[in-house]
Amino acid sequence: MIRIGLDIGGTGIQTGIVDDSGHILERSAVVTRTDLPFSEQIAQMADCCLKMLEHGGYSLLDVASIGAGVPGVADPKTGEVIFCTNLGWHHVPFREEFRKHIDKPVFIDNDATVAGLAESVAGVSAGTSSSVFITLGTGVGSGIILNGRIWSGAHGVGSELGHAILELDGEPCSCGNRGCLERYCSATAIIRMAREQVVRHPESSIMTACKGDIQAINAKMVFDAAREGDPLGVKIFRRYVFCLAQALASVCNVLDPEVIVLGGGVSKAGSFLLDALRVEVPKYILYKDLPSSRIELARLGPDAGIIGAAMLS
Amino acid sequence: MIRIGLDIGGTGIQTGIVDDSGHILERSAVVTRTDLPFSEQIAQMADCCLKMLEHGGYSLLDVASIGAGVPGVADPKTGEVIFCTNLGWHHVPFREEFRKHIDKPVFIDNDATVAGLAESVAGVSAGTSSSVFITLGTGVGSGIILNGRIWSGAHGVGSELGHAILELDGEPCSCGNRGCLERYCSATAIIRMAREQVVRHPESSIMTACKGDIQAINAKMVFDAAREGDPLGVKIFRRYVFCLAQALASVCNVLDPEVIVLGGGVSKAGSFLLDALRVEVPKYILYKDLPSSRIELARLGPDAGIIGAAMLS
Repeated sequence: MIRIGLDIGGTGIQTGIVDDSGHILERSAVVTRTDLPFSEQIAQMADCCLKMLEHGGYSLLDVASIGAGVPGVADPKTGEVIFCTNLGWHHVPFREEFRKHIDKPVFIDNDATVAGLAESVAGVSAGTSSSVFITLGTGVGSGIILNGRIWSGAHGVGSELGHAILELDGEPCSCGNRGCLERYCSATAIIRMAREQVVRHPESSIMTACKGDIQAINAKMVFDAAREGDPLGVKIFRRYVFCLAQALASVCNVLDPEVIVLGGGVSKAGSFLLDALRVEVPKYILYKDLPSSRIELARLGPDAGIIGAAMLS
Repeated sequence: MIRIGLDIGGTGIQTGIVDDSGHILERSAVVTRTDLPFSEQIAQMADCCLKMLEHGGYSLLDVASIGAGVPGVADPKTGEVIFCTNLGWHHVPFREEFRKHIDKPVFIDNDATVAGLAESVAGVSAGTSSSVFITLGTGVGSGIILNGRIWSGAHGVGSELGHAILELDGEPCSCGNRGCLERYCSATAIIRMAREQVVRHPESSIMTACKGDIQAINAKMVFDAAREGDPLGVKIFRRYVFCLAQALASVCNVLDPEVIVLGGGVSKAGSFLLDALRVEVPKYILYKDLPSSRIELARLGPDAGIIGAAMLS
């Protein structure tokens, strides 16, 4: 049997046919049309899936299930998208609507949760029964797998590690609170630190990389500067590693998963970041002499969205 | 059938016979003798249980299981106490040792976890499938129940919410890190704030309550002052509620349990504290328009240790 996964994003919807081991056999995509009512958006997604099946030489009889990851809050029990800012969706009965077009079991969950599931089935945390996936991008998302099952909360609003508090009265967050973890552990945090500090250190190679336009600074420029030994780059990198290590130590102390998996744009720094975290996190965990969570880099990259969605059940 | 629960503390071991609904039918206790080797300590505990059974008119045939909650790290799978500072125990094979005296199924877990289980079986969170129990005492402990089962981590070192970071570079903690949640949300935190601030506000009724001896200040004095409208008492109470509300909002955003249960000495402030938290926490959660965790006060008090231990399985 095959499964279909949909990775629903604000600009495009990536779809794929996935086998039981989590390999993508066929792909397609459709542009997100937030100008259309949700029923038409969902009709387009279903149509994209049907064409992909046809192109791959599959029939609906081959399809075990269809799953979708959405960048927002979904209720896995009812199949409803409760809230999705990027799509402008509020209380959209996704499952009900999708099944008007393809009458198969339809599952839905948050996109970071789905990516975490993918890693735990076919990625770096495969074979573990508990993992916390953390995506370090513009914001910080997370997916929690415990006893081999997704945990997204009793009301489906959990697994938002990016909005755990890391600093009382800290940096203002777009959510309205202050000091949220994602204000310190996202790519945005790296960029903020660099913009604030580079004006006092115009000699930094970060200034060269952004050609003097501090609005053009990105996280990669800062990490590249750190790798080359640029003092400001190193300082910002160390502070970022400290903040993220405190966040990961909190995950160890509270959830103690077998593995913590780091994904998202910042994780592309690879072993430069991973090695630093593996030195730093053990300093902050409570039981320093006892076994604790391994820290790993995600393996599936952007495919995690399709694979994890297909694996929903 | 009946079950036996042991609440193992640093000064005394409370034991009880508990029925299937979580009612304590018979009680006994034995003094903790950290001067003895663990084998003799455990022999005394087993002896206490046997005498309690006899006193209550029960035989070993009536006993389904025996459970123990310890103030430290326990491995529920092996039945080993990995680490318990108060008892001076390191890698003590509790189950193996106890079964030399009473050959019944023996279970073990952390004391805060066990208290959380008790509340979820016979207390305020009975009937829910997910809850986070938080004990606000000298430190902050916690017990996590998800899908009706205890979650204490892949390595048994999780569920230590008191050592999640609430402030980067914050107050030094006894664990060696800085900014741990328990530095802001424990009775100790209330006392610290009062001691720091009362010297600048000698007119505060806190100073009267402690008879000018700031070492004698306790959390109840501060909350009583707040209730009476003493400005310093009110200020410290509000700051404490703010810090705890940030911590509880983080629990809502990450774990999203059906219920958060507050126990421990500070929770004896009752509705004065609960009402304030129920106003404050919703301000800081991510999805303000969606259903979220209820906040409740623990109901079982100190009995939770015996009841929860008996309910381990």
